Amino acid sequence: MYKRKFERNDKRDLLLFGYSEHLELPSKQLEPTEIPKPHMRWNPARQEWVTYSDSRKNRTAFPPKEYCPLCPGANLDFPTEIPFKDFEVAIFPNRWASFNSHNQSITLKEVLTKNSNGKCEVVVYSSKHLDTIAQMPLDRIKLLLHAWIDRYEELLKQKDIEYVMPFENRGEECGVTLHHPHGQIYAFPFIPPVIKKEIEAFKKDNFLLKLMNKLENKYYVYQDKNIIAAVPPFARYAYEIWIAPKRQLPGPWAFNDEEKESFAIAMQKVVKAYDSFMGKKCPYIMGLHAAPQINDSNFHFHIEFYPPLRYEDKPKILAGSESMAGVFVMDVLPEETAITLRKHIQ
Amino acid sequence: MYKRKFERNDKRDLLLFGYSEHLELPSKQLEPTEIPKPHMRWNPARQEWVTYSDSRKNRTAFPPKEYCPLCPGANLDFPTEIPFKDFEVAIFPNRWASFNSHNQSITLKEVLTKNSNGKCEVVVYSSKHLDTIAQMPLDRIKLLLHAWIDRYEELLKQKDIEYVMPFENRGEECGVTLHHPHGQIYAFPFIPPVIKKEIEAFKKDNFLLKLMNKLENKYYVYQDKNIIAAVPPFARYAYEIWIAPKRQLPGPWAFNDEEKESFAIAMQKVVKAYDSFMGKKCPYIMGLHAAPQINDSNFHFHIEFYPPLRYEDKPKILAGSESMAGVFVMDVLPEETAITLRKHIQ
Repeated sequence: MYKRKFERNDKRDLLLFGYSEHLELPSKQLEPTEIPKPHMRWNPARQEWVTYSDSRKNRTAFPPKEYCPLCPGANLDFPTEIPFKDFEVAIFPNRWASFNSHNQSITLKEVLTKNSNGKCEVVVYSSKHLDTIAQMPLDRIKLLLHAWIDRYEELLKQKDIEYVMPFENRGEECGVTLHHPHGQIYAFPFIPPVIKKEIEAFKKDNFLLKLMNKLENKYYVYQDKNIIAAVPPFARYAYEIWIAPKRQLPGPWAFNDEEKESFAIAMQKVVKAYDSFMGKKCPYIMGLHAAPQINDSNFHFHIEFYPPLRYEDKPKILAGSESMAGVFVMDVLPEETAITLRKHIQ
Repeated sequence: MYKRKFERNDKRDLLLFGYSEHLELPSKQLEPTEIPKPHMRWNPARQEWVTYSDSRKNRTAFPPKEYCPLCPGANLDFPTEIPFKDFEVAIFPNRWASFNSHNQSITLKEVLTKNSNGKCEVVVYSSKHLDTIAQMPLDRIKLLLHAWIDRYEELLKQKDIEYVMPFENRGEECGVTLHHPHGQIYAFPFIPPVIKKEIEAFKKDNFLLKLMNKLENKYYVYQDKNIIAAVPPFARYAYEIWIAPKRQLPGPWAFNDEEKESFAIAMQKVVKAYDSFMGKKCPYIMGLHAAPQINDSNFHFHIEFYPPLRYEDKPKILAGSESMAGVFVMDVLPEETAITLRKHIQ
């Protein structure tokens, strides 16, 4: 697989991953925008950092109505983020980053602040505007996996970065405004609170491995000998699915070739099952949960999918109990939704 | 103020709070429904309880389309939750409770479970279907405050109950399907994770009192000498507002009469400001954060409002960073939204 580093006109890198070498000359590029300088404030009530990136509200409203900034720009009448005729997987810095290393600090009396250092990248899965993980050739998903691994290995080495999380928001219900298939990578300057708890849990005990028999027999949606996709028995969303290797591995970088193949298949089967279940592109939030370091012998890598649905296709809204108290209320049992989703696995 | 305890046909209590004694004879009652027996499962990844109440999915689809189960039943052609011609504030057990004390336990191998004991109550603010906190007479808000205090004092005494949280979800964006003005009270058998953090924070340090000068000068939306309504400088929602007494008090039960009056006024002014800002009934999640015990000398009572809006009237959707990592990303600064909202205070 090939990786091309193309320096954009704002001196930042656009990465192109592919099965063949990318040699095309660039067409016209987007005008550089101001590099964001976000900051964080400590929320003492929640004991967590909140990041403020107020340039985000200036996200340009682009001229032509059907403008897709993630399509190959050279084919269109206007520049896009990717100034080429074609590409396979493309990754570039988010123009309105919530985390971005810089030296411009702000101080607020009585409120703890910090630069919101780190990185935010956009991962474009395909040059085709209407592709999704469900329809892509399997090779493309393997290429995406390869690109994620590249980003893990590179970003985790950088100072200012303590945790890397690739994720995808899919569907308007999950806040997506650009329909071109893409995800994001957030490289945080701290371990995010959700992950901190998970790291601590895995340090005590590999609850995933301990549960593996139960998952394989009762909660699975799809599995082969390397990988399982299952509704966890303690799911917080009705149709929550986790995809995990059957042996303990810190992150996708530790997969062998067979596991990579299994993982790509499982990933596609899960998205296809969601779409078949919903009878349309199913909305979800999907995130990779890997260890905070390349060498970690406790953490068990997995992907979590949260479709914002409760019983059947009714939306689950996180209201009083969930948002205000942090207590999830579920209408359906994971063992039931596992059966429902299993029927949609092809 | 008066409180009537009316035993319903399911042997559970409907409470009626009013400035005059409620003596009306009941009209026809709703058929009793099965008393729910929810259970909890421990989510090891998040280190939190998830509650499963699978009878919730059977929530009756009531016959007439315009049926409001929270209206006074005696005026209608069908029974409702409140079998009277009129009432002021009414509270009754939620038929599809997420927490409900019972003795029927379930066990799951490899997954920690517990009965989802506790109580869930529905609080109806008015007999008028179209009322809201913005329009009610101030006396009604004081009566509501009185009813909340009654529930705190009574529920906190019960075994199985460790924390009491009254809250309100307002607007369809927050999952509301019944438009009749109402809130809920969740009485949890454990301290909810969000509150646990807050209790620990206040034990270390009263961050609200420490911040009070800043709030009074820069972040306030409304205040008088007893009460302040402000956008906290570490807000997670653009238009988040906290209402808090200016002195440390564990809960609304510790208010003196003047503070009660101030609080009711502040509460109404905040909801009115939201509605004026939005130009319509503004959606929000609102919750009372009081101490876990009546006598607590650390916790600082306050109400939090989370309107699901980001910059201007665009919805803020909790996606990858918020849901998956627990990290909130903000487009606007609290000091700016405080100024915006202050202009709408009447």
